[in-house]
Amino acid sequence: MEHLTLLTDLYELTMMQGYFKAGNHETAVFDAFYRTNPSNGGYAVCAGLAQIIEYIKGLHFSGEDISYLRGLGIFEEDFLEYLGTFQFSGDIYAIPEGTVIFPREPLVKVIAPMMEAQLVETAILNILNHQSLIATKAARVCYAADGDGVMEFGLRRAQGPDAGVYGARAAVIGGCCGTSNVLCGQMFGVPVKGTHAHSWIMSFPDEYTAFKKYAELYPSACILLVDTYDTLKSGVPNAIRVFTEMREAGVPLTFYGIRMDSGDLAYLSKIVRNMLDEAGFPDAVISASNDLDEYLIENLKAQGAKITSWGVGTSLITSKDCPAFGGVYKLAAIQDGAGKFVPKIKLSENTEKVTNPGNKTIYRIYGKDTHKIKADLICLADETFDTSKNLRLFDSLETWKRTTLKGGTYTMRELLVKVFDKGECVYQTPEVMDIQAYCEKEKNTLWNETKRFANPHEVYVDLSDELFDMKRKILNEYSGAV
Amino acid sequence: MEHLTLLTDLYELTMMQGYFKAGNHETAVFDAFYRTNPSNGGYAVCAGLAQIIEYIKGLHFSGEDISYLRGLGIFEEDFLEYLGTFQFSGDIYAIPEGTVIFPREPLVKVIAPMMEAQLVETAILNILNHQSLIATKAARVCYAADGDGVMEFGLRRAQGPDAGVYGARAAVIGGCCGTSNVLCGQMFGVPVKGTHAHSWIMSFPDEYTAFKKYAELYPSACILLVDTYDTLKSGVPNAIRVFTEMREAGVPLTFYGIRMDSGDLAYLSKIVRNMLDEAGFPDAVISASNDLDEYLIENLKAQGAKITSWGVGTSLITSKDCPAFGGVYKLAAIQDGAGKFVPKIKLSENTEKVTNPGNKTIYRIYGKDTHKIKADLICLADETFDTSKNLRLFDSLETWKRTTLKGGTYTMRELLVKVFDKGECVYQTPEVMDIQAYCEKEKNTLWNETKRFANPHEVYVDLSDELFDMKRKILNEYSGAV
Repeated sequence: MEHLTLLTDLYELTMMQGYFKAGNHETAVFDAFYRTNPSNGGYAVCAGLAQIIEYIKGLHFSGEDISYLRGLGIFEEDFLEYLGTFQFSGDIYAIPEGTVIFPREPLVKVIAPMMEAQLVETAILNILNHQSLIATKAARVCYAADGDGVMEFGLRRAQGPDAGVYGARAAVIGGCCGTSNVLCGQMFGVPVKGTHAHSWIMSFPDEYTAFKKYAELYPSACILLVDTYDTLKSGVPNAIRVFTEMREAGVPLTFYGIRMDSGDLAYLSKIVRNMLDEAGFPDAVISASNDLDEYLIENLKAQGAKITSWGVGTSLITSKDCPAFGGVYKLAAIQDGAGKFVPKIKLSENTEKVTNPGNKTIYRIYGKDTHKIKADLICLADETFDTSKNLRLFDSLETWKRTTLKGGTYTMRELLVKVFDKGECVYQTPEVMDIQAYCEKEKNTLWNETKRFANPHEVYVDLSDELFDMKRKILNEYSGAV
Repeated sequence: MEHLTLLTDLYELTMMQGYFKAGNHETAVFDAFYRTNPSNGGYAVCAGLAQIIEYIKGLHFSGEDISYLRGLGIFEEDFLEYLGTFQFSGDIYAIPEGTVIFPREPLVKVIAPMMEAQLVETAILNILNHQSLIATKAARVCYAADGDGVMEFGLRRAQGPDAGVYGARAAVIGGCCGTSNVLCGQMFGVPVKGTHAHSWIMSFPDEYTAFKKYAELYPSACILLVDTYDTLKSGVPNAIRVFTEMREAGVPLTFYGIRMDSGDLAYLSKIVRNMLDEAGFPDAVISASNDLDEYLIENLKAQGAKITSWGVGTSLITSKDCPAFGGVYKLAAIQDGAGKFVPKIKLSENTEKVTNPGNKTIYRIYGKDTHKIKADLICLADETFDTSKNLRLFDSLETWKRTTLKGGTYTMRELLVKVFDKGECVYQTPEVMDIQAYCEKEKNTLWNETKRFANPHEVYVDLSDELFDMKRKILNEYSGAV
């Protein structure tokens, strides 16, 4: 779909009409953030900003949109007329794609008239939730692969065309070396890869002929699928026969090997490695697929599997064990007549679900010696810090957990960058492969203890003194009022 | 995305070039089918055919597509030239959307020259897998809701824009009474619904004022969200105050009530029901949301929760407990020079994964008395049956499990219908709401024992004698050859 203005929940429009009728044109601050890392992990990777920017740029109600809305019988003419002239006029700040992120941090901050800020909620969350989910999953799978190439090829199991294309984009950002998805390759200039399916083998009278034909056609990237009939008795012997004939014919064997898509991959890969080595093909690649995910890859590696290239489909493109990134979009402040932001809070019986009020930003704090993340600090947008001075950090829920960073031992970086200024885009999205390279550096700012799958070490996300005090004050007022 | 021709795996194109170079223009039969019902259920609901049809109709390689492929450096000019003239020229048969389906049944059958049949694999599976997954999930959620309205509102957690829009379409096919997704409403003429969010309440000085404003604007569909501050102490009393004022002002209370989005829904709904009843609002709706799925709804009903309207988001739009429908696309036959279909089979160590060879169709068998499904029969496309005669059925894996249907006690219906004839579309897709009505009838052909969530009764999908004998013969040949 190209025109996404109506990609929104109906209630955004009914609320908009409500603000319109109430004459509410006040500027509001909304934060998009999430509460829990996917798959019980220690971090996430944010992605999707490029598509959010395209969406915001394209926002307008066409004549057809207005007619459709009129037909619903709940919108009045003055409001529909306003929609006809609608333009996004606000500011947007966001954390750049490929950055590692943690719960409760504003990933996208929208500062715009209430009506505009409300309209864009659903699409921003849809795009941000989807791509951050898949980028995070890809980072996890690549961590398990420990330097081996991981190829995304889940398009057939993705939740629709967009999920396939933007999911593959996010997977490449998270660390995949390529995708099978040709449309993604065309749209985003990322490497596309692929060889043949079982049907190729079955369409020939026998497996050897199928391999031979394939090798003649694609000698410089010759990965043969060996499990159509019997991996050890038929597939690998036929592959070795073809590789031998290639060598005898003087064809340079640059990138070649086999792929297995079934069976006990740990056991088979060891036997196959021996067969290939003994036949004089020690540099033949062994690649594997078949419902793989980060846990299986880690386990296969622990078993000493001789696999050096991984194809990951369903589990990556759907983030199968955790198919939703729980991003939410909450009102944080409303500007009063004097232009001052009045902080707003959403209460909840669950303390962790109480939102952080006010117009905020985030600073990332690194150790000067390690270049690893020490903590993130959420604070009010106008706060400043002097890194030559000591910085006291404390957990906002368990406030007795405190630490002090010595002045001069740490550096700070603001994570939010300005993306829209009064409705104008002021941000240039990098190329996807550049985002991948940036993400690689970002992942290196985490200790392995945070990247591991079981009980990862939690990175501290603390509130500044000023923000903490403001939040406590508002909470006390509310609890007095109810 | 509008132009989906490159929405395919690269290997489909490398194989196509292989067939092109080998001069392989033989007609092949491919079946799209699945092996296991999602969520350990007893059935699935198929959906997505309308979008598959649009995809096939739109197939063509643009100049940009050809340039992109040329740039990959693996395709030769004669093949690229062929792509420039590519048109789909084959036949497609499919099971209509909204039909209940079972494992191993061909849902889509493509009969086309090998190159064409191969190209369309990925997109057909992508669309079919996604929409069938969500339609099935919706049918399950609606079964749990037991006649109550279920509204889809998962757009913000869907895996991208398409997943939101086509997922909502599939959810409506599966039984949802509407969606929050305005774009889906516009595209497919399905009901859109929605009220307001917590941010609406928070943008007013107090909850009562927010409710009051909302009721003034939308008196005829006045569902108030009561859990922003405190459901029982603040939200419901304020809602009752507003309803009372509406009644006193003579506003007709046609469709009104409250929505809860947090807390113990079983407990709260009973208290809230009493509060509303005692205030004289026995027809006020109590709707609920908050990470609901079919299991929670069934459980809330078992607890006597007084909820009559359900909003389901993340779990439905992502099919959270089972986010992929395992549809596959396998070669079943290749036409020889004489026009005869030579059956093809994909072996596997797992007996259930061995494919069914040949050009096939499916008959559904109903009891004449109950109109419920007795079994499905997969057979060769040219087989005929006489329902006045006895029909012997047997399980193709456990062949000693047999039953005989007495002539005259059953009816048969062929499930596959022709959708494309020599590249021309010959099928008119019904409106989504008509598909929903058809699906409702389809679900009634299942016993509740098949619809329940725990250990559902399995519907028999048997092979005809002729197909079974052919399959056994090919298997014996292969096992002799390897």
